[in-house]
Amino acid sequence: MLPMTNFSPPFAITRASHVSLSVTDLEASRDFYRDVIGLVVTEETDDAVYLRGLEEAAHHSLVLERGTDAKALRVGLRVRTDADIIAAERHFASAGIEHERVEKPFQGPTLQFRDPVGTHMELTSSMQTVPRKMQAFDEFVAGAPQRLDHYQVVTYDVQAATDFWMGLGMRMSEYTATDGTDELWGTWMEVKGNTHDLVFTNGRGPRLHHFAYTVPDGLSLLHAADVAGAKGFGDEIDRGPGRHGISNALFLYLRDPDQHRIELFTTHYQFIDLEDEPLRWDVSNPKRAQLWGMPASNRWFFEASEFPGETLTEPLLQATPPTLEAYLGLH
Amino acid sequence: MLPMTNFSPPFAITRASHVSLSVTDLEASRDFYRDVIGLVVTEETDDAVYLRGLEEAAHHSLVLERGTDAKALRVGLRVRTDADIIAAERHFASAGIEHERVEKPFQGPTLQFRDPVGTHMELTSSMQTVPRKMQAFDEFVAGAPQRLDHYQVVTYDVQAATDFWMGLGMRMSEYTATDGTDELWGTWMEVKGNTHDLVFTNGRGPRLHHFAYTVPDGLSLLHAADVAGAKGFGDEIDRGPGRHGISNALFLYLRDPDQHRIELFTTHYQFIDLEDEPLRWDVSNPKRAQLWGMPASNRWFFEASEFPGETLTEPLLQATPPTLEAYLGLH
Amino acid sequence: MLPMTNFSPPFAITRASHVSLSVTDLEASRDFYRDVIGLVVTEETDDAVYLRGLEEAAHHSLVLERGTDAKALRVGLRVRTDADIIAAERHFASAGIEHERVEKPFQGPTLQFRDPVGTHMELTSSMQTVPRKMQAFDEFVAGAPQRLDHYQVVTYDVQAATDFWMGLGMRMSEYTATDGTDELWGTWMEVKGNTHDLVFTNGRGPRLHHFAYTVPDGLSLLHAADVAGAKGFGDEIDRGPGRHGISNALFLYLRDPDQHRIELFTTHYQFIDLEDEPLRWDVSNPKRAQLWGMPASNRWFFEASEFPGETLTEPLLQATPPTLEAYLGLH
Amino acid sequence: MLPMTNFSPPFAITRASHVSLSVTDLEASRDFYRDVIGLVVTEETDDAVYLRGLEEAAHHSLVLERGTDAKALRVGLRVRTDADIIAAERHFASAGIEHERVEKPFQGPTLQFRDPVGTHMELTSSMQTVPRKMQAFDEFVAGAPQRLDHYQVVTYDVQAATDFWMGLGMRMSEYTATDGTDELWGTWMEVKGNTHDLVFTNGRGPRLHHFAYTVPDGLSLLHAADVAGAKGFGDEIDRGPGRHGISNALFLYLRDPDQHRIELFTTHYQFIDLEDEPLRWDVSNPKRAQLWGMPASNRWFFEASEFPGETLTEPLLQATPPTLEAYLGLH
Repeated sequence: MLPMTNFSPPFAITRASHVSLSVTDLEASRDFYRDVIGLVVTEETDDAVYLRGLEEAAHHSLVLERGTDAKALRVGLRVRTDADIIAAERHFASAGIEHERVEKPFQGPTLQFRDPVGTHMELTSSMQTVPRKMQAFDEFVAGAPQRLDHYQVVTYDVQAATDFWMGLGMRMSEYTATDGTDELWGTWMEVKGNTHDLVFTNGRGPRLHHFAYTVPDGLSLLHAADVAGAKGFGDEIDRGPGRHGISNALFLYLRDPDQHRIELFTTHYQFIDLEDEPLRWDVSNPKRAQLWGMPASNRWFFEASEFPGETLTEPLLQATPPTLEAYLGLH
Repeated sequence: MLPMTNFSPPFAITRASHVSLSVTDLEASRDFYRDVIGLVVTEETDDAVYLRGLEEAAHHSLVLERGTDAKALRVGLRVRTDADIIAAERHFASAGIEHERVEKPFQGPTLQFRDPVGTHMELTSSMQTVPRKMQAFDEFVAGAPQRLDHYQVVTYDVQAATDFWMGLGMRMSEYTATDGTDELWGTWMEVKGNTHDLVFTNGRGPRLHHFAYTVPDGLSLLHAADVAGAKGFGDEIDRGPGRHGISNALFLYLRDPDQHRIELFTTHYQFIDLEDEPLRWDVSNPKRAQLWGMPASNRWFFEASEFPGETLTEPLLQATPPTLEAYLGLH
Repeated sequence: MLPMTNFSPPFAITRASHVSLSVTDLEASRDFYRDVIGLVVTEETDDAVYLRGLEEAAHHSLVLERGTDAKALRVGLRVRTDADIIAAERHFASAGIEHERVEKPFQGPTLQFRDPVGTHMELTSSMQTVPRKMQAFDEFVAGAPQRLDHYQVVTYDVQAATDFWMGLGMRMSEYTATDGTDELWGTWMEVKGNTHDLVFTNGRGPRLHHFAYTVPDGLSLLHAADVAGAKGFGDEIDRGPGRHGISNALFLYLRDPDQHRIELFTTHYQFIDLEDEPLRWDVSNPKRAQLWGMPASNRWFFEASEFPGETLTEPLLQATPPTLEAYLGLH
Repeated sequence: MLPMTNFSPPFAITRASHVSLSVTDLEASRDFYRDVIGLVVTEETDDAVYLRGLEEAAHHSLVLERGTDAKALRVGLRVRTDADIIAAERHFASAGIEHERVEKPFQGPTLQFRDPVGTHMELTSSMQTVPRKMQAFDEFVAGAPQRLDHYQVVTYDVQAATDFWMGLGMRMSEYTATDGTDELWGTWMEVKGNTHDLVFTNGRGPRLHHFAYTVPDGLSLLHAADVAGAKGFGDEIDRGPGRHGISNALFLYLRDPDQHRIELFTTHYQFIDLEDEPLRWDVSNPKRAQLWGMPASNRWFFEASEFPGETLTEPLLQATPPTLEAYLGLH
């Protein structure tokens, strides 16, 4: 049976909000996200760069930290109020979930924890605000990314991850399952009223597959690709432009200088009414991944960013990527 | 002082959801909304046509009813559950607000009421669902409107309207006020996490100024205008294409065969975090209405749809539209 | 009767190629064309700035010259070879048309002349070439104008101007005429295989109404308008965005700091085959000017750039702009 | 040495104009080109369907003929006048080139011939005209193709093909050659003032690789792909969307029900001035084919439409497609 949303969750999550990555060449990564992607640099220190989308009033949605290894450090969510941080702390304590209060610059009360499949998460209830830049049209660069929207995490146990997060109030908008069963291969879950804030897909995990920013329209995607080409990052597009079946987004995926992956996409549909059922896609249906065109590269299927100190576990379900070779006529 | 949001509202409103209009030639109006705007006809009866946007799973977001006069009948909002309808009923009873439970086809429990400035409202907690059409790309017509997003109501007392609705849990994202004071000329209020579900602007009211559907991008707006021209409705564009200062939308306004007004616009920015303050625009700042280009026509400024049986009241504040004549060089 | 193209012209004109303007604040004008329009600065001297569109290999298509008055200096056309310059010289000598060979930096053999309605023209057969910038997507600014396309000149005698230029080999693609007659109000003439290189419209002249650059698509037009708004030039859009009936272009018109007018537009249709007849628009048909939306401002109708030393002559035909007041509800 | 354009050609070619294909299911092919691509059906007979782009005034640019085999029948060019047909006839006679005058419905004098590499060509000097549909915006479908623009032919001898066509007055705008030599792998040749009317690339030939229609903008390309997906032709996109290095076009390639290939693309740059040199791309430079993203499928590289009765010849140069496997991580 499909997991059910807990409509009286222990604390109130409101949206996907910020991600932190360790990068091996801080200046190269800053240049990539500013000049090839088009994010705004809010602040730089010796060891970190804080960036945001053009419409964001929150201080940062992407934090690059200087590191010796390229890792996904934290996947961040917002909760509604400071009281929700305290409620989360209580809940994790009673549930026996590892967690820790931390001080993070520019953020309000912040709580870090590890979810049951090993994803390194962070909750905060507020951030310092800065002016939205969405009307500084003369400063738009590349895809003109507007805001952080969601994350995709590769996990060895989609069912366990989904049970946990729906228990915290997330709703499932779409999912893939083995034909004829409810064996979950991927789940798209949301709290902010559109298709997803957090996605889990089956694979060797835990790893962060990508984080995603919205762009204004399809031409912004194409311009982002053109700019990537012009700046020497044309080969770092590892999927797209294309149209997902699931969520209906037009998408483009790029790899940063450390091979962290960012998705640019046009915004998805509204998912608010309680009578809306999650949309099911059989895992045998290739249109779930893409409505038309060439499938993703193998890089897209098999590469993702690890979290520090986490051992990777082979997936419970055996994945088979789309028949790329058939498409390409390689046999 | 600005009104404050009631964060423990008596019942939970979730979004702008459906509007009903009486129209004098039902077939002509259906053809307009289907062929010139691009809405999907879900259902037709002898006396009504039910339409929706391409991505909408709810049965209808626009109801056209055959009538002898062209009127705005009802402005509809969704509440979360059936229990919220009952809670609303109790609240209105205790607050002395006129209200009535009604049966509406394809809708769950439905409650009608009149807000303090005379707007005819309707709440419902659910609707029959139908398949989303957002991937039926071969059926896209004109602007390819995706979903109903918000309403703008002209009122003689913006302060009273705003007090009422923020008391029901709406948050203000932006507002216009007399320079140097908090005297309100217009308020943009939301419940669904972006800039507005319900807008009140100062003028002879109550009248429905427009209801608005999102379109995928700016080219869809231009294509809608081109299609309107090709279908003989080119003169019924009474504003735009242009860019609002408030809310940042690219917009196009059209008048239907009864002169009801529909806005097509590209979607606005996210407004979820509680630390985000409402954005203030001095009424003297012309950029609040438009960042560039020609101002609205006088038709846009002075014409709107009346509610049946409501007497119009002159506004408390004396409005002066932008200096159109100066722009046009007419003096 | 309509004038006829001379298919054995005395010399071969190939395209609209470059325009020179005198401007009163050279730095302000350069900043405008580079940062608000998006042209590329090829070269600057103390007294002149040379600019071009992103795809242009020719050294310049716009020359700004420091001056005490704002004037349209020269409207430039290309001829095929140096021999065509010599042939032109001979032709003008035998036809009694004022002309002069001049040295112009970065240009091959160059011949200036005054056409019968007083337009200051310049022919050249070659220019120094520079790399095309059309794939430097990371340097695209504002509307990303690709190339100079055409000119519109206001003249007191459209018939005389048209006779002259069709005698030099231009073909008419579209025209406006008094209903029921061939009395010409405006003529769109081309040599390069699309709808126009040179347009004459009836009015007090000679004056240069505008010069036009192509942009890649409609979103580039909207982005140009947004950038103009962001840079403080939002009020300098004196028409559009809109769709012309004649030529079918999506257009946007902006005024530079000296009130010279530039059009940005999406490219028009092919006009090559000899069996294609010119398309006629009755002057009473408002769709010739615009297929939908608000008409042009009076600034657009009545203001244009004068040529140095030319006396203005009242038009032979009495023009009436579209019924703007009716549209705006001003009476 | 590169071949040189003959600037005094024996007759005047003006543009790529019409292509005819034999198809095995006429109704299925008509539906594809009308509903998935968006061409306009001008006329249907029992055995043929005549289609055109939305802006075309010429009766047809694509002719589908009912056949038992799927073949490329004729690649059509326009010449300026009837006299050019006679001049062509004389020229081919004196040059010993197979040719034949034929009667073709809706066309003026028509001459068929076989070029030295076996391409089946057809010249005509005029066509019956029909109204341009470019302002019937309400009839736009899918990519809204505006006009036929060019052809690409696979040949075993690019040098011979190029010598022949430049001898007939075509100019080369771009070419690929073995690094450090002038050994030609592909040549882009034009007569109408932009980058190409006729392209030859090295491979087993003669075969028609594709014919290409312009679309208004990049979003039209994406919408065409979306419509193809919705209509069940998503797998028939065998390349793109992407950006060519050569010619700078944004492109999308689709296969019709008989596997003939059509390209939709945004229009390329102007190429008129005689001082513009052809742009060279080393065959080792992968950016010539694509500025970013995934390379073409093997289907795109190796499949093309044969001409009736022509034996295929292996190419003189040994082609190696881009390192697809490396990109895909297949080794």
